[in-house]
Amino acid sequence: METQIKKRAEELMEKLTLDEKIGMIHGAQLFQTAGVERLGIPPLKMSDGPMGVRQEFEPDRWNTIGHSDDYVTYLPCNSALAATWNRKLAYEMGSVLGEEARGRGKDVILAPGVNIKRSPLCGRNFEYFSEDPYLTKEMAVPYIQGVQMWDVAACVKHYAVNNQETGRLWVDVEIDEQVLRDIYLPAFYDAVTKGGAYTIMGAYNKLYGEHCCQSDFLLHKILREEWGYDGVVISDWGAVHDTQKAALSQLDIEMSVTYDFDDYFMAGPLKKMIQAGEISETIINEKVVRILLLMMRLHMLDGERKAGAYNTKEHRQKALEVARESVVLLKNEKNHLPLKKEELKSVLLVGENADCLHSGGGGSAEIKALYEISPLMGLKTHLGGNVKVGYTQGYCREEKSEDSQGNWQETSLENDNGPTKPSDHQTDEMEMKRKQLRNEAIQLAKEYETVMYIGGLNHDLDCEGNDREDMKLPYEQDILIQELLKVKPDLIVVIIGGSPVEMDTWIHQANTVVWGWYAGMEGGNALAEVLLGEVNPSGKLPETFYKTHRDCSAHILGKAIGDKKVVYHEGRYVGYRYYDKYHVEPQYCFGHGLSYTSFEYRSLSVDRIEKKILCYVKNTGNVAGGEIIQVYKRSNENEEFYFRELIGFEKVFLEAGEEKQITLNLETEIEKGCELLVGSSSRDIRLKFKFDFK
Amino acid sequence: METQIKKRAEELMEKLTLDEKIGMIHGAQLFQTAGVERLGIPPLKMSDGPMGVRQEFEPDRWNTIGHSDDYVTYLPCNSALAATWNRKLAYEMGSVLGEEARGRGKDVILAPGVNIKRSPLCGRNFEYFSEDPYLTKEMAVPYIQGVQMWDVAACVKHYAVNNQETGRLWVDVEIDEQVLRDIYLPAFYDAVTKGGAYTIMGAYNKLYGEHCCQSDFLLHKILREEWGYDGVVISDWGAVHDTQKAALSQLDIEMSVTYDFDDYFMAGPLKKMIQAGEISETIINEKVVRILLLMMRLHMLDGERKAGAYNTKEHRQKALEVARESVVLLKNEKNHLPLKKEELKSVLLVGENADCLHSGGGGSAEIKALYEISPLMGLKTHLGGNVKVGYTQGYCREEKSEDSQGNWQETSLENDNGPTKPSDHQTDEMEMKRKQLRNEAIQLAKEYETVMYIGGLNHDLDCEGNDREDMKLPYEQDILIQELLKVKPDLIVVIIGGSPVEMDTWIHQANTVVWGWYAGMEGGNALAEVLLGEVNPSGKLPETFYKTHRDCSAHILGKAIGDKKVVYHEGRYVGYRYYDKYHVEPQYCFGHGLSYTSFEYRSLSVDRIEKKILCYVKNTGNVAGGEIIQVYKRSNENEEFYFRELIGFEKVFLEAGEEKQITLNLETEIEKGCELLVGSSSRDIRLKFKFDFK
Repeated sequence: METQIKKRAEELMEKLTLDEKIGMIHGAQLFQTAGVERLGIPPLKMSDGPMGVRQEFEPDRWNTIGHSDDYVTYLPCNSALAATWNRKLAYEMGSVLGEEARGRGKDVILAPGVNIKRSPLCGRNFEYFSEDPYLTKEMAVPYIQGVQMWDVAACVKHYAVNNQETGRLWVDVEIDEQVLRDIYLPAFYDAVTKGGAYTIMGAYNKLYGEHCCQSDFLLHKILREEWGYDGVVISDWGAVHDTQKAALSQLDIEMSVTYDFDDYFMAGPLKKMIQAGEISETIINEKVVRILLLMMRLHMLDGERKAGAYNTKEHRQKALEVARESVVLLKNEKNHLPLKKEELKSVLLVGENADCLHSGGGGSAEIKALYEISPLMGLKTHLGGNVKVGYTQGYCREEKSEDSQGNWQETSLENDNGPTKPSDHQTDEMEMKRKQLRNEAIQLAKEYETVMYIGGLNHDLDCEGNDREDMKLPYEQDILIQELLKVKPDLIVVIIGGSPVEMDTWIHQANTVVWGWYAGMEGGNALAEVLLGEVNPSGKLPETFYKTHRDCSAHILGKAIGDKKVVYHEGRYVGYRYYDKYHVEPQYCFGHGLSYTSFEYRSLSVDRIEKKILCYVKNTGNVAGGEIIQVYKRSNENEEFYFRELIGFEKVFLEAGEEKQITLNLETEIEKGCELLVGSSSRDIRLKFKFDFK
Repeated sequence: METQIKKRAEELMEKLTLDEKIGMIHGAQLFQTAGVERLGIPPLKMSDGPMGVRQEFEPDRWNTIGHSDDYVTYLPCNSALAATWNRKLAYEMGSVLGEEARGRGKDVILAPGVNIKRSPLCGRNFEYFSEDPYLTKEMAVPYIQGVQMWDVAACVKHYAVNNQETGRLWVDVEIDEQVLRDIYLPAFYDAVTKGGAYTIMGAYNKLYGEHCCQSDFLLHKILREEWGYDGVVISDWGAVHDTQKAALSQLDIEMSVTYDFDDYFMAGPLKKMIQAGEISETIINEKVVRILLLMMRLHMLDGERKAGAYNTKEHRQKALEVARESVVLLKNEKNHLPLKKEELKSVLLVGENADCLHSGGGGSAEIKALYEISPLMGLKTHLGGNVKVGYTQGYCREEKSEDSQGNWQETSLENDNGPTKPSDHQTDEMEMKRKQLRNEAIQLAKEYETVMYIGGLNHDLDCEGNDREDMKLPYEQDILIQELLKVKPDLIVVIIGGSPVEMDTWIHQANTVVWGWYAGMEGGNALAEVLLGEVNPSGKLPETFYKTHRDCSAHILGKAIGDKKVVYHEGRYVGYRYYDKYHVEPQYCFGHGLSYTSFEYRSLSVDRIEKKILCYVKNTGNVAGGEIIQVYKRSNENEEFYFRELIGFEKVFLEAGEEKQITLNLETEIEKGCELLVGSSSRDIRLKFKFDFK
């Protein structure tokens, strides 16, 4: 079958002129290549992004068209999805995205991002799954399969080590090759092999001195030769810098952000080099065959293609289900949660994120959402008209200049170095305004029975093109939370964001802390359901919540977030791997997340022949709930590298009092002296098994 | 029970000071009265309007607050609901509105409007049900019951004869009293008696020389004495003009649009008159008792109140169901509809209404919709990514000045005389632009297999505060449709609007015409489902679609739409009643609406003892479908008044081939010589029965 279609692709390629072939391997519009009408070859239509199919742009200008047909289902970000630790939901969310992309007439959806969260400051972390390669690939593979069941190609990105936004167009990554292969490449490998991703996107940055989109090492040697990949490699938009290198490195399609489509490196300049005999046409032929192969895989040439649909109520329901499972209950010391709806009289929400719609931001992940339920809306509609629900802003963000509110793409390549700093005068005014807002909040807080803080980050900070400077809550939120805690010691703190924030100035006073992500169009409903106990939280952190970014290995051991060059000195000690050896306490560890019920673990056994791990987990509380059973391998202390790493997990839903036997596949090699740790988080280990075999 | 709560209301009233009582009978904010905190009496919170709960305004300024918690379910307009002729849907839509109002914390929702469509030009017709009193009340009664099951008061409006917007604040209606009682009052009577509407809104205009909100005849004599109404009468916003008259006429609450709340007629000035002994405090006491009675009926004082919710998926589903049944298939001469989805290759939509979102307009009926599916969106997502769907604007509207885009309320009372006319220069430019748009549309139409025109009206025309000048399609749409028909004779014409338009310049060329209304947030999906045959249209016109407004009795016989005074010379010959006697042909008659199947009627019998009409209706086509069986009484030609009038209807859904016996209650008196006409429209009569009893 595959051989047959390859043969047909080759035959079709033979009929094409050089111009036609060149047209297929570079952007003829901002988001599509040229087709060959005389042979019935359509253009390849691509679209951002991971949280939904992006709005329509004019073919040759970064202007949105602004019609009513590109509102879409707004899905939770990948960090939120990862927090569910639910492979089935990953498949289903991928399927929603794929069906919507197909409904919108797209061929390639530029998702998922599988880069490893090396530093919590990376502006694009909300688009990525985890700091852990295993969790990343376990979520990415079903996600990709879900997308592609709709005859739409996933485009796994950004290959590779695009782990920061600072200087992302030019920064050169220096990393030990084995670490690269063990930590940063596995998700890409599984995405294209197990996941079968039809396309992959080359990153902006350099690796070992060469831009990723023209890296013979990454594209030719690893991707094509080692992994045997025959899918299509697409450049990030504007990531190509050299015609010959890109052509020879096995990049298939050059996309960019400029309007001079014929002057793209793999357009006019490439044609000239071929005509001059400097590059063999065979190189182009291979690319075109792979593109035709992709089109055949997507049934673009045979009329057998699935149709898709978007904005269906099923899609909204799926967005809600993911959002529900993504909420992470960080702290519930006095069991104030869940709130008892029938006892509530007045609830005050303090903080702009209660009322903020996040869908329109983030860079290329921005969404023209059909709608977005804010926390304020979600709580109000769940509580109904008999409970007094108040809202006060509490803090305010910096006002953006007209320029920086303009289209992201237009400026992103020239101005990739963060927002402009406000002047002293502006700073004074802002301080005054914030003080007023805080006072208003404190006064109001005294008038309400229940006070909830809903703050955190937004896409001014969690955004493509910029990294954060630190993990501090912006806009003086720490002061506001501290002041609120003084008048309302039972303040419920809800932080919404795509990456962790410092909590040390108030976490010891706060007894109730909930983490919400950019959780899609139904995020506010999901949050309300969790707070009111209609949904029992079952999310777990897919990344370490450091006390400060300075506790992150990349910032201690490595040179994190360099401008021109970054050296990954921390090696494989990424994220939670770093903790055991270096004895650092995180604020909340990888895998952490509480429930309104409790779970007991017992009877761990390991079947080495069948490669299975077995144990029993029981819901010992009074309500049904979901638990994520995590399996870590801890290496022998005498080994060169001493750390624990996630090698398996399973999410299970148990009724109150119910017990189930859990079976996990042991997919990794176990060396003598290793320990298996089974637990409810990376540091809440309930069962252990030591391998002392001879 | 009722006696008990009246006693309790009186006892509570006795505890109030004069100031407290005065506070309860006028607006203390733009949409609420004052409460009496010391006695646990809350303010009465009101909100527009009929298509959903309006957005939140500042308490004392016509500025919207703009938070994220006042997006709501956007329901079809009342004209659309009436086109379903489905009493159960009326109840369910009322229930959605009531539950949303309660969810938003409201006590009174300012709906439904039950004014009779005397002229097709009335700008607010889209908010009303019908030209027919019987259809109006049959829909209004269950609607009100649906609203009020949520412990929210309906406010039936605008009492009475508010049948035009021109000069609405001052225009004086002169009408024969028996006609008033037979045509214009029955819907109000049924609304407050059968429907049990807890509140009623007095109209802006005058009747017999007196403003309705201070009319002893309307409020005291008819409403209180004849009908025995003990609900609350609320003035339209700014409809009171005299303290003494309003107080004595049995108006209960004065609301207005200005910010000088203490100076409202029934505020400070009334207090002074009472203190001066010019008005007895008893008058105020009666009002306060009725308001307290209302609060008790709504469980505002006993803590037993329903909570409500808004933006639920059930509400969206109900909006969709109403929208589906509201679509009226006017013409399908060549059975081009339904389109066969699997055979479609390319579809072009021409006309701004394909892409237009209507929710934000119309005056006080404006909605901050959670979302709105346009026809373009509906069709695209139903067709999926394999059908090429194009859109071109085709025509454009006049650009509004900054002023007229401002908030409607701020200017409505000063500037109630229609939009400003454009200058000659602007007219020339507009003509050029429209010509260009038409040419573009014609060229594109040639490139597509299927072309659909989606035009009509919008809330620049169907709008509170203004009447249309005529029934012509605006923006030179007639020319565009004619030109499109020349290149695409099978053009599918879809007209969206809240009131009929002239079609005579193109209706004989067009073989396929569909009528859509402002059909709420799911309107575009419903339309797509009808066009693609997923839903079989079952809507029927709830009003006459005249060829021109000059065919309407109010414009021929009466003095329609006068500025200062309007005389209803046409008497009871309103709408279709006029046709038989005067032999005028409508474009599409009252009750008209086609189906994708056909129905046969047989065996009419009348049981005069049991007061029942019986007949059989059979679906003789190949698909399931809904039929609305209409019963008209035609008076004896020798009677003083000769016309047919609707006295019964029943909507029935039949599978292909299925036959059902239909039973209708005969609720009206039948005089000798009368005929009963049973049919599929007011002019498609299938069965007759003549009363020749002795």
